Amino acid sequence: MTKVQATELRRFFVSLFERAGVSRSDAALVIKGLIQTSLRGVDSHGIRLIPHYLQAAFLGRVDLRAKPIFRKTGRSTGILDAKHGFGIPAGIAGMEKAISLAKEAGVGAVSVRNSSHFGAASIYALHAARKNMIGFACTHSDSFVFPYGGARIFLGTNPICFAAPCSGRYPFVLDMATSRISWNKLRQHRARGEKLPSGMAADRYGAACTDPHLAVGLLTAGEYKGYGLSLVVEILCSTLTGMPAGPKVPKMFPVDNKRRRLGHFFVAVDISRFTKIKEFRSRLSVLLNALRAVPPAPEFKKVLVAGDLEWETLVERLRTGIPIPKEDCSEFQRVAKKLGLPYKNINWLTR
Amino acid sequence: MTKVQATELRRFFVSLFERAGVSRSDAALVIKGLIQTSLRGVDSHGIRLIPHYLQAAFLGRVDLRAKPIFRKTGRSTGILDAKHGFGIPAGIAGMEKAISLAKEAGVGAVSVRNSSHFGAASIYALHAARKNMIGFACTHSDSFVFPYGGARIFLGTNPICFAAPCSGRYPFVLDMATSRISWNKLRQHRARGEKLPSGMAADRYGAACTDPHLAVGLLTAGEYKGYGLSLVVEILCSTLTGMPAGPKVPKMFPVDNKRRRLGHFFVAVDISRFTKIKEFRSRLSVLLNALRAVPPAPEFKKVLVAGDLEWETLVERLRTGIPIPKEDCSEFQRVAKKLGLPYKNINWLTR
Repeated sequence: MTKVQATELRRFFVSLFERAGVSRSDAALVIKGLIQTSLRGVDSHGIRLIPHYLQAAFLGRVDLRAKPIFRKTGRSTGILDAKHGFGIPAGIAGMEKAISLAKEAGVGAVSVRNSSHFGAASIYALHAARKNMIGFACTHSDSFVFPYGGARIFLGTNPICFAAPCSGRYPFVLDMATSRISWNKLRQHRARGEKLPSGMAADRYGAACTDPHLAVGLLTAGEYKGYGLSLVVEILCSTLTGMPAGPKVPKMFPVDNKRRRLGHFFVAVDISRFTKIKEFRSRLSVLLNALRAVPPAPEFKKVLVAGDLEWETLVERLRTGIPIPKEDCSEFQRVAKKLGLPYKNINWLTR
Repeated sequence: MTKVQATELRRFFVSLFERAGVSRSDAALVIKGLIQTSLRGVDSHGIRLIPHYLQAAFLGRVDLRAKPIFRKTGRSTGILDAKHGFGIPAGIAGMEKAISLAKEAGVGAVSVRNSSHFGAASIYALHAARKNMIGFACTHSDSFVFPYGGARIFLGTNPICFAAPCSGRYPFVLDMATSRISWNKLRQHRARGEKLPSGMAADRYGAACTDPHLAVGLLTAGEYKGYGLSLVVEILCSTLTGMPAGPKVPKMFPVDNKRRRLGHFFVAVDISRFTKIKEFRSRLSVLLNALRAVPPAPEFKKVLVAGDLEWETLVERLRTGIPIPKEDCSEFQRVAKKLGLPYKNINWLTR
């Protein structure tokens, strides 16, 4: 495990993306989104996705020349066709449209179609929160999760994220898969040969199991509630957009030349239409601090609020760097070599 | 347990409400909402709340002469001040405003302040779904639930509801507390002397327990996820509206003369701004039927979709009547007596 400063990583990945033929603006957005996610400690959705994203570009799954098209369909609504480009720039464009609709009309809702993997949903909700909006972002994904009580995987991990600005150093941000864990986390357990906690995943009969190699799918969070929420996400991202749903969503792995055809849904709410922003931010801060002051239950150290852990990690990693496992370094090397990028003089990569 | 037809109940309750001085239009909305909820089998939020609602009116907690005021704050946003009237008419008015904003601008978002208990969130989301909108409704409530890892109750059960129109006989409707169960369900267990399933509630030290009399609060659904979602609801219903939050929300029980000062939040999304409604409805039906066709996991009979059970119950209860426990009949009698309403000739009530 080596630790690398975010700025250094940014420089290296930008060179990689430029060598791969990615436009400067798309490269900047993708790398910024992934590095922010790694800084927040969500390694499953951070820079380790870079080789996957580039491979998707090499194979033509992602179209590097895609020019997304936005169509406004109401004073507060619009549809963005991502034209099969990278998911992160499409997501940022979608949320920015939602924000500008919200500035105009009070709320903005934008659906995105023909997109690809968009990384962590928090990228977009945080983008809105930084502009004094309440941000909501969700995406469907390919089939990884058992419907509650079912013996066959059907829906994706279908994450939702909600962020709101707050006085103090950082916003409220809840970013959660509607499954107990994300598929990328199960893959990490497989790679490390670690057992899963119970109730996270199930075998091919739909029975709960802890061996990540026997597990063929994930279980929903809060039983029928997480299942219901994953369906809400599916409705917003595929029923509303016309993208394929559930088992028909083209798979993320293995990476091939098939378009993902993913849908996302973004909402921005202009807080100033409901209350004074300053009051909102200070009320929220009082509320969150009151929760943090609740004494802990047996076996807990402290009551946290969504976003606390990620913020602590961010502060720490800005100082000490982002930890990168050896196998990820090898992957980065492999991609650099393939693209003919000189990397032998990059200390952290070859250490 | 006696079973009574909905039409008969409606007649009786309307007389009760009129004797209590409730306006005809408010009475109609409150009773319609509660009977619909009882028909759907959600007894904890159905007609059994009627004595409580009337008591709240007698004591002046609810203002029977309240005239809610709506202020439009954007092409797609508005604030409804319920002026401490009944929660259900305020909720319906809030959602109707959201729907008309959505018709105009594509999306409508309305916050409600100075409201009271609004019954089941499904009343409002279903109202939107019937008008070919995606409906979202939530409310905060008084302090019943432990924050994840905390030893003191803080937030309410903070339910969220999401409904969407679908081909076939009934819409998709997910109506869920962000706690494992609702407080009204815990009260039902207390009344019946039944143990709680494990993981639903905790004692005064924050440790999980199954005795409903030892339980002082509820646990969140999906651990930190339900906790995070309950905070989202609190942010929309109190931080955004300026209503009191968490432990500062005036209690539902015991009923007294204090205003509840509750906030709600409603969103309506005009589906036709994103896709053809007919296609949306038929795509959703195909998706839900595919989920229902997933083979069941061990120990399950069948895969269901949010709203299936409630629809089956509704069909059954429209035919056979709404079952009313003896103790609820006594309560209804008590209120009728108090209001001087002749009830001795009402068969089902005195049986």
